[in-house]
Amino acid sequence: MAKWVYLFKEGNAEMRNLLGGKGANLAEMTNLGLPIPQGFTITTEACTDYYTSGQKVTEEIQNQIFEALEALEKQQGKTFGDMENPLLVSVRSGARASMPGMMDTILNLGLNDKAVEGFAKKTGNPRFAYDSYRRFIQMFSDVVMEVPKSHFEKVLDDVKKAKGWKFDTDLTGDDLKEVIKRYKEIYREKMGEEFPQDPKTQLMEAVKAVFRSWDNPRAIVYRRMNDIPGEWGTAVNVQAMVFGNMGDTSGTGVAFTRNPSTGIKGIYGEYLINAQGEDVVAGIRTPLPITKLEEDMPHVYEEFMNIADRLEKHYTDMQDMEFTIEEGKLYFLQTRSGKRTAFAALQIACDLVDEGMITKETAIKRIEAKSLDQLLHPTFQEDALKAGKIIGQALPASPGAASGKVYFTAEEAKNHHESGERVILVRLETSPEDIEGMQAAEGILTARGGMTSHAAVVARGMGTACVCGCGEIQVDEEKKVFSLGGETLKEGDYISLDGSTGKIYKGEIKTVEAGISGNFSKIMEWADEFRTLKIRTNADTPEDAANALKLGAEGIGLCRTEHMFFEGGRIRKIRKMILSKTEEEREAALNELIPYQKGDFKGIYQVMEGRPVTIRFLDPPLHEFVPTEEKDMIELANEMGISLDEVKAACDSLHEFNPMMGHRGCRLAVTYPEIAKMQTRAVMEAAIEVNQEKGLNIIPEIMIPLVGEQKELKFVKDVVVETAETVKKEKGSDIEYKIGTMIEIPRAALTADEVAKEAEFFSFGTNDLTQMTFGFSRDDAGKFLDAYYKAKIYESDPFTRLDTHGVGRLIQLAVEKGRETRPDIKLGICGEHGGDPSSIAFCSQLGLDYVSCSPFRVPIAKLGAAQAAICSKEGK
Amino acid sequence: MAKWVYLFKEGNAEMRNLLGGKGANLAEMTNLGLPIPQGFTITTEACTDYYTSGQKVTEEIQNQIFEALEALEKQQGKTFGDMENPLLVSVRSGARASMPGMMDTILNLGLNDKAVEGFAKKTGNPRFAYDSYRRFIQMFSDVVMEVPKSHFEKVLDDVKKAKGWKFDTDLTGDDLKEVIKRYKEIYREKMGEEFPQDPKTQLMEAVKAVFRSWDNPRAIVYRRMNDIPGEWGTAVNVQAMVFGNMGDTSGTGVAFTRNPSTGIKGIYGEYLINAQGEDVVAGIRTPLPITKLEEDMPHVYEEFMNIADRLEKHYTDMQDMEFTIEEGKLYFLQTRSGKRTAFAALQIACDLVDEGMITKETAIKRIEAKSLDQLLHPTFQEDALKAGKIIGQALPASPGAASGKVYFTAEEAKNHHESGERVILVRLETSPEDIEGMQAAEGILTARGGMTSHAAVVARGMGTACVCGCGEIQVDEEKKVFSLGGETLKEGDYISLDGSTGKIYKGEIKTVEAGISGNFSKIMEWADEFRTLKIRTNADTPEDAANALKLGAEGIGLCRTEHMFFEGGRIRKIRKMILSKTEEEREAALNELIPYQKGDFKGIYQVMEGRPVTIRFLDPPLHEFVPTEEKDMIELANEMGISLDEVKAACDSLHEFNPMMGHRGCRLAVTYPEIAKMQTRAVMEAAIEVNQEKGLNIIPEIMIPLVGEQKELKFVKDVVVETAETVKKEKGSDIEYKIGTMIEIPRAALTADEVAKEAEFFSFGTNDLTQMTFGFSRDDAGKFLDAYYKAKIYESDPFTRLDTHGVGRLIQLAVEKGRETRPDIKLGICGEHGGDPSSIAFCSQLGLDYVSCSPFRVPIAKLGAAQAAICSKEGK
Repeated sequence: MAKWVYLFKEGNAEMRNLLGGKGANLAEMTNLGLPIPQGFTITTEACTDYYTSGQKVTEEIQNQIFEALEALEKQQGKTFGDMENPLLVSVRSGARASMPGMMDTILNLGLNDKAVEGFAKKTGNPRFAYDSYRRFIQMFSDVVMEVPKSHFEKVLDDVKKAKGWKFDTDLTGDDLKEVIKRYKEIYREKMGEEFPQDPKTQLMEAVKAVFRSWDNPRAIVYRRMNDIPGEWGTAVNVQAMVFGNMGDTSGTGVAFTRNPSTGIKGIYGEYLINAQGEDVVAGIRTPLPITKLEEDMPHVYEEFMNIADRLEKHYTDMQDMEFTIEEGKLYFLQTRSGKRTAFAALQIACDLVDEGMITKETAIKRIEAKSLDQLLHPTFQEDALKAGKIIGQALPASPGAASGKVYFTAEEAKNHHESGERVILVRLETSPEDIEGMQAAEGILTARGGMTSHAAVVARGMGTACVCGCGEIQVDEEKKVFSLGGETLKEGDYISLDGSTGKIYKGEIKTVEAGISGNFSKIMEWADEFRTLKIRTNADTPEDAANALKLGAEGIGLCRTEHMFFEGGRIRKIRKMILSKTEEEREAALNELIPYQKGDFKGIYQVMEGRPVTIRFLDPPLHEFVPTEEKDMIELANEMGISLDEVKAACDSLHEFNPMMGHRGCRLAVTYPEIAKMQTRAVMEAAIEVNQEKGLNIIPEIMIPLVGEQKELKFVKDVVVETAETVKKEKGSDIEYKIGTMIEIPRAALTADEVAKEAEFFSFGTNDLTQMTFGFSRDDAGKFLDAYYKAKIYESDPFTRLDTHGVGRLIQLAVEKGRETRPDIKLGICGEHGGDPSSIAFCSQLGLDYVSCSPFRVPIAKLGAAQAAICSKEGK
Repeated sequence: MAKWVYLFKEGNAEMRNLLGGKGANLAEMTNLGLPIPQGFTITTEACTDYYTSGQKVTEEIQNQIFEALEALEKQQGKTFGDMENPLLVSVRSGARASMPGMMDTILNLGLNDKAVEGFAKKTGNPRFAYDSYRRFIQMFSDVVMEVPKSHFEKVLDDVKKAKGWKFDTDLTGDDLKEVIKRYKEIYREKMGEEFPQDPKTQLMEAVKAVFRSWDNPRAIVYRRMNDIPGEWGTAVNVQAMVFGNMGDTSGTGVAFTRNPSTGIKGIYGEYLINAQGEDVVAGIRTPLPITKLEEDMPHVYEEFMNIADRLEKHYTDMQDMEFTIEEGKLYFLQTRSGKRTAFAALQIACDLVDEGMITKETAIKRIEAKSLDQLLHPTFQEDALKAGKIIGQALPASPGAASGKVYFTAEEAKNHHESGERVILVRLETSPEDIEGMQAAEGILTARGGMTSHAAVVARGMGTACVCGCGEIQVDEEKKVFSLGGETLKEGDYISLDGSTGKIYKGEIKTVEAGISGNFSKIMEWADEFRTLKIRTNADTPEDAANALKLGAEGIGLCRTEHMFFEGGRIRKIRKMILSKTEEEREAALNELIPYQKGDFKGIYQVMEGRPVTIRFLDPPLHEFVPTEEKDMIELANEMGISLDEVKAACDSLHEFNPMMGHRGCRLAVTYPEIAKMQTRAVMEAAIEVNQEKGLNIIPEIMIPLVGEQKELKFVKDVVVETAETVKKEKGSDIEYKIGTMIEIPRAALTADEVAKEAEFFSFGTNDLTQMTFGFSRDDAGKFLDAYYKAKIYESDPFTRLDTHGVGRLIQLAVEKGRETRPDIKLGICGEHGGDPSSIAFCSQLGLDYVSCSPFRVPIAKLGAAQAAICSKEGK
């Protein structure tokens, strides 16, 4: 018989996949002999079983839960639902990966009309007991049964009003009895049955609610953002309650062993006296710094510090701990490796290596590659900052500078972000429902909550600038205005935030990119030691190339030549080329373009100083270049000496039904070989001249896009070779050059053995390859992909994370076939997946030579490549 | 050392691939001891070598040509370029497959200023000798050196004018010497050198010209139409000249052993006295029927008949023979299996089996499956015909009835065909340049030429109605009018042709489809005996289904449900559904559609009487259904009680950048499961009701389109199963049903092992699969595919002929993976390739269960499947 439930003492930290992170760590801490309220964990497998059984908990699993419960009762000397000394438990989710704020929690479970009496007797505090029961009914009804909170809040307000009370704390035991009575009436009315009195029924309903919450929309969005597979499931932790809200010798808090923003060693956290755990996280009351505890309860503080230190050493990582003090006694409710900013992650990783606690390999593996993104985010331009008007300051919750237009709801933020605006989300406080708006925002500003509030935790995770707990701000979310520091700002006005200082500025302040130095550059050096993949960049201009070099790029994997055609006078010349009626006219127009294109290439070659540069020939359909406005058409007609109607007709004739699958890529070179000739000439002349001028040995790499067939590549290659040889002769040069192709059409991958006969290198264009393999266009997929995520058909955006399953099979096939024909063929990818760590791991596994990504993502790719290499060395 | 050149006596009929059809048959006839002017064949491999050597004939090959020439000189007792008795040769192309009119021929090669004297002496006919030289200079200059014919024609006219002559035959020997002098001047002027006097130089230039002609645009078009690979190359036949133009005891002709139009046994052909071979084929003079030869030259006729009979028996097939009589002596210039109409092909195949000459298998293999298309072409409606006014009658050159608008150039015919018109091409005579216009035409009418003229041969090959040699017609191609039978008709006027009777009608006459009977039905029965593939049809209506059944369909492989939505009131209902804002509104709108859809399915089930019917769920993007005209939008707005702006906005929101890769197929069912529910209900209710009403056991097959991932199929399948089970319960039925998917997205093929877990059948949607595998859309590919054909990158339209190389690999992969998971999975194809014989052969090889094609193509598919089965049994 399968084991579905483990007592804490039966598990350990290695059992994370089965028990979830929280459950495994509770088990580990139990084994370490730490003060943990005991309990048991229902496994992630039970969650999976729940779904495959049609959302039912089987009898077998239920029996094991009740057995564990019995064991817990014995251990605690309390009985579930007892009138004298009832056992109360919390029910919490705990997945394999931490999903903060995503899952629902139920406290005080076990209370009923009788047990509340027993609880009152035992605690000697009837008011506390009835308040606990009230809270439980509300939480259970809301979280488990989905009866809206507002009904209960109204009752509470009504009773307070009737009594003339102002605060919840004014309510007496008898008031609370009245509240409980009315709560139960609401429950009966909404649910058509009495509030469940059987604690076991309560428990099973709560367990099912946790299982269900694994699939709520917020959880699905979070998983997609963090590459967490839906099949993992969540465990459920059932733990004896301890109470931080039993008076002034009780309290609850959250602390980190190192600063999660900066990584600086030393305890860092907050606590609240006389509060339940959720009060801290929810950020409703502003808590005290942990160091204050030393004054309040020195013995507890000492014990806490000892255990914290022990936990960090045990796990060899910075810990994020939750604790409760019940009438002077300290309990740890959980510990886990703490979330941290990328900045802190680097600091901690370097420190832990210095402290001899971990190896360099472990340090590299510990840093989430994607998180480096944060460090590459902008800071304010110094001069621009001087002119900025500070209108307020609050908690520096997530570092980085941000500037954008103010929006007051997650939805508005998301919508305006999608229409291209830079957005700052301003909220009283954030909640998990806001997740997509937070993701869309450049920065987040909240009125309430501390450094561990929802907004702060999530923003750090995302690397989004965040300023929290700004008490002075007056936010009117309805009217869409806020006032602060004497200014009133409305929706759409610009503000700027510095998440590192907590300062809030009126208006827009220009930002600058961050560089690589200190710990960052140390980690990059380590990454370079371990990785086997080369990292190139996608860059179309000397500026991009220079930026990428600074960030560590080792070459250019994709230089898109078409971007060069949009500037000023060039677009007119390319339009002339497109509207030419004869090959001669076209060649003449193209000849005018050569100096520009050559100049661009020279600029790039000069910056790259001999590093490899792969130049992709013209790719987009020609209609992207023609004018759409009549005045531009008239200008073009005049310039070409033809009628406006002719221009219009020519532009119309370029219309395509499915431009993505139309007349583009090398198809342009097959129909107009003179374009390939012009580009070849520009590439070759530029390389020869720069070689001569700078004494370099540039070997140009010419890449033919959108090839689907060997003969097609050969046709274009023949044109290129003929022109290149002509240029060499003209210039008296014996320069080498390489010709390769993009593999971005399924047919090219399927026939890669043949294509490789003509190609010295393959570069996988994973954007197009993904589109054609899935049969949906990136521009249109937005209309239905959300439904696919909801239905768990796809769990991540295949344009962000390489679909190793389908597209990956095609790539693997092409790699094998390509190498069959040409064992030394150079292989790389240049789609946007080149900057995605999980996709990089796949490329590393396949033994590609390089990945190419945007300049901005080069450090991420380097770290990802190092992690992949280390994992592969370790046989993972 | 490779052998590049074969004397006729060194080859045989089996060496067709190497020697080409003509060369192999000349060798075979030589071995049979028939009267053949001797010569040699330069192999097809030499042609391929010519291209791979950069359009050069290597020294090795040239040496072998000259050796063969020497052998020929010895055998003929004549010497190349000799002043006494010069050897003259013809140089002709001859590919593996017959390509009539596509390749260039040079006659009288070997003549020069000296040899012409020797020739005059030897023949005793100086005028004839100079005329031969003149003709040679003109032909060589035109065909080999591309000096336009018109220059030479002008000289001839000038000389005739100066002399007061009317006809070429009026020219004297001296006149011709003058002509030759001027011809050579033109040559010198145009080519910058003297006309080549060295016969070996003449020969090598002619050989190269034949090689080059393999790649002329007409040849490429012809190959694409007939699935002939470009790498085959052509052989070159060099043959001693015999002369049919040496007086009244000379002549030349073409004959068939059976009638190529009807297949009736008995000699059938034409000849011209005192003419060169090309005169018959070109159709410039109207020739005599072959039976007339019995009167003119009884001995020659007897010898001819004996040899013709021997050749037919030897080849066991109807022969098409060219012969020349030189001063009373008969020579055969070539024999080959004769081109024939499909009607004749069936007759001949059945007769040859009856005569015991061939087996049924051979009979089946002999009939080109595609050609059956002709027999399924329309004939005139009897009543409509009675009202038709006959304006003329001429040779019934290619059977079938045709009606359309008159155009006078191939280009106009092609253009108007493409814009949707039915077209009749009217020409003085046709030439190979007209090929595309002929293909576009419903029918062809020519003023000149006989039953073996270019127009007649090509039209029969295409199955296009053709009436030839209409002497009375007055055609003015410039003014775009013709007059006939007292009527004057201009471009765009309707005429009708009966290619079986030769009658020409004024105006449009309605046509009717042909049925299957007689030889056709006999061959279909034989095909059914041998084939292993089932043949289903693509049909959306009871009418289509009934038509397909008549043509032999065994089921419906693709019933497209969307076509049902465009009729009358239905389109309004589907628009309402599309514009619904809530699931409830959408369901209400869909419920209104159920009765219609169910009615359609019932109609189809009733016609199909229990044969399998695969119903594909809604596939096209929704924007195809919404109104584009404002008045329709207003109507819709009124009907739905919303504003016009709302309707416009909703329609706009459906816009897609690449609709082919957008929100369509099962993606619609994922976003709107209620559509799948409605369709399932309609399918199930219809089947249950028809089963009850007709006592049938229909097992509906529901096909989910555009699947790319197992979970996606499962999602939709779950919806279908739930609804189907509900309907079964409601109706108290235990009907079976099957759920399968189309494999038309590369990812589905790549993950077919997983997809097969949910699918009871796969139907390959080769149209979409081809689009996505090639990465080009069918609607847009027209803009560049011509350039691809020209560059020989692709040789056939991948949407017509399955790309077995790329798309085929994907299909094979899916077949293997699908069977891995589900060994009994049913496999078929339903793309348009289902009616293409070469694609059917591929499906048969893969062991698919069925192909599904348009009703019209069912007989072709049956024959193709039988041929594939026979070839596979024979191990080919």
